[in-house]
Order: sequence, then structure tokens, then C-alpha cells
Amino acid sequence: MSATADSYARTGRSTPTRHRERASYDREVVHAILDEGFLCHLGFVRDGAPVVLPTLYVRMGERIYLHGSTGSRPLREAGQDERGLPVCLTVTHLDGLVLARSAFHHSLNYRSVVVHGAACQVTSEEELTAAVDALVDNVVPGRAADSRPADAKELAATAVLRIDLAEVSAKVRSGGPNDDAGDLDLPYWSGVVPVSPAYGIPVPAEDLSPDIALPGYLAAR
Amino acid sequence: MSATADSYARTGRSTPTRHRERASYDREVVHAILDEGFLCHLGFVRDGAPVVLPTLYVRMGERIYLHGSTGSRPLREAGQDERGLPVCLTVTHLDGLVLARSAFHHSLNYRSVVVHGAACQVTSEEELTAAVDALVDNVVPGRAADSRPADAKELAATAVLRIDLAEVSAKVRSGGPNDDAGDLDLPYWSGVVPVSPAYGIPVPAEDLSPDIALPGYLAAR
Repeated sequence: MSATADSYARTGRSTPTRHRERASYDREVVHAILDEGFLCHLGFVRDGAPVVLPTLYVRMGERIYLHGSTGSRPLREAGQDERGLPVCLTVTHLDGLVLARSAFHHSLNYRSVVVHGAACQVTSEEELTAAVDALVDNVVPGRAADSRPADAKELAATAVLRIDLAEVSAKVRSGGPNDDAGDLDLPYWSGVVPVSPAYGIPVPAEDLSPDIALPGYLAAR
Repeated sequence: MSATADSYARTGRSTPTRHRERASYDREVVHAILDEGFLCHLGFVRDGAPVVLPTLYVRMGERIYLHGSTGSRPLREAGQDERGLPVCLTVTHLDGLVLARSAFHHSLNYRSVVVHGAACQVTSEEELTAAVDALVDNVVPGRAADSRPADAKELAATAVLRIDLAEVSAKVRSGGPNDDAGDLDLPYWSGVVPVSPAYGIPVPAEDLSPDIALPGYLAAR
């Protein structure tokens, strides 16, 4: 299926082999899952073998930006090739532990997005600055404007990769356990334990002046 | 460096290119990080391109077991080759958002483990049964004994991959921001926002009999 204004193209590798009914190519669904997170797992191939590294990301329109430094392995490699580094970027939000009466039907509720594409190094200073601000704001909204911006030396030491969103799919499992009809009378508890990330009380740096109050964007969290 | 009773061998690909001071090959450190989680990101190569999928895992001694079904892509492929499927398995726990005075020194506190190895399909029924129980208990300790065990048909439809822990490294960032000395008097808040997974109140299945109380292993959570 070709791409449309509302959905991504469906390709062989963006079609799950299992539970296809859980897959979605809808842009809004994909964007919502991506926008809720900031940490992805980035996969690439090195010397023929897979490598998966946790990496900071942000979505801007139909692009993903990834944070690195000019010393990092995938970024060095992406910089060597104009076509970019083939990558697979996966974002997963765990929403619940699904306990069925049978061990077999135990499951997890989750929302995930898998992006296949090529990662290219961002070279324009304007695009780099915008991406760095967006990466910071994606972790703590409002923070980029409330910190010292990167200077020329820092920007030169920061590498950012860009991936166009083209071959993308989401996968979502939600709801209760799917117990077999024959198991419903078994004496085991069945249901879902919700899971979500919890943010604790911010801990000031040891060298922070007591005159500096907790900013509103953190207090509201 | 060769493997010892206390630590894994250090190889080229298990040595991070960045922040080597954060790396550890200590078996206890690696085991503790692995044992705190149950969801990894599994990377493998398909048609020359990387694929990364969220996958359930459990550690048993110096082995990792991964859950799949006989229909899943990596498992089908691993089953085709006695040497196993080359994989990279990454587990990441996010512990905090690190806010520095400068945008550049913003960071995340995390503990991650990266395992390089070959995933082989488990064929012995005894090993398969033990792994399935361990996978369930790794998500909810005590649950395997309090659910209907898999029958022969279900076991036949369950595929489990095994990876030996040999080429493994952990990476840990903790503590406060590393601000530049020249930034310490800037008027920006600096510190860490702790993050951890939170488990909510269990939601019983709609068809659960009201006679079945919440089990102790869930109430204690």
C-alpha cells in the first residue's frame, strides 16, 4: 500500500509477521507514540553483525533526529556515506502486565513504533541548532530556553542524525487477557497491572545556589 | 581482556567508543541490570538491514532466554541455522533526567546492558518448560505456579531462543550534572529528575469471578 496524507506506506519489512491486527500505519497513531518518548533503541549493522544502542531522539514533522557525539560509532559511519547508515529505530512504551489464567496467554500491553530508514548526519548549522533545542525540549518541555545555548565549539562536538519517516509502523496491544473459554472457571486471578514511568521530586545539584527556585516546567511535572 | 569468574571478556565490539569510564564487564553489575528488567530490544540482520524488536527475556545463570512464537521472524531464522542467529540484545533502565546549566551537558542517568551473541532455538522440552516458567516469573514473581501451565499444543506453539552471556558489557551513568566551571553562576536550575517505572492498581478481567481475590504477589507490588 502506498503512502497517503494519513498513513505510511506498508512494505514487506514494515508488516509484522505476528499479530498483524495490532499493526497501524496511521500517521497520527505513529506520531503520538513517538512524541510520548525520548529514548529509542537504535539498531545498525557493523561488520555484518547487529548493534543496538539506547539513543535520545525527537520527532520534527516527518523526521526523526537522533543525538550523538562526533565520536560515536554510528554517527562516524553515517558521516562516511552520503546515502546514510541503514538503521532500525524502535520506541516502546510499556503500559501493562497482562495476567491470563493460562501461562500461555500472559502478555504485555504496549505501544511501539518501528522505523526503517537511513540515518544521515545533519551538517547545516541552522538545522543542527534547531534539532539540539528540540532534543532538550523533548525530554523537558521549556528547558531549551532556560539553559545556556550551545556555543560554536559545543555544536562542533555534537553530531545529530536525521531519519525521514517513510517506512514506519506502530504496534499496539491493549485491553485485558485473552483467556481461552475453557479456562474461565479456573481459580486464578486474571487481569492487568498498569505500568507507566513515574517522575520523582527533582534533586538540585550540590553546587546549585539556594536562590535558584525550581522552575515551573519542573514543578508542574 | 579474557573472561574471569568475576567479569566478562572485553572485546572490540563490547567496548564503547564513548564514555568508556561508564562501562563495566563485572558479572554482578551485568546480572543486576538484567534481572531488574524483562523487556529488551533485540536486534538482528535481515536482508542486510537491521531490525530491532521489543522482546521479553529472562536471565538464568549465564544464559538469556527470549520469548517468541514459532511464527516470529527472528525465531524462524534462528531455527534454520545451527550456529544460531547473530543478535544484539540491549536492556536499558532510565533512572533520571540530568539538567545542566548548559544545553550541551544535559544527559540521562541510566543503566544498560548490551549482549552480543548468537540466538539458538531451544528444542529440549524440559529446557523449554523451565524457560517459559522463568519468563512468566520474571515479569510477576510467583505467577508461574499460580496459573495453568502450558499444555503440549501450547508448548509446541511457543518458541524460545537462548543466548549465552559471553560478550557482554554494562554502561552506567549516575549522579548529578557535569557543568563547566564557567557555567556555575548562571541563573539556571541544575539537577536531576528521578525516573522509575510505576505499577498501578491491578485491574481484574471483566469476566473474573468476584470470589477470586487479588493474589499476595500482586498486592505486595
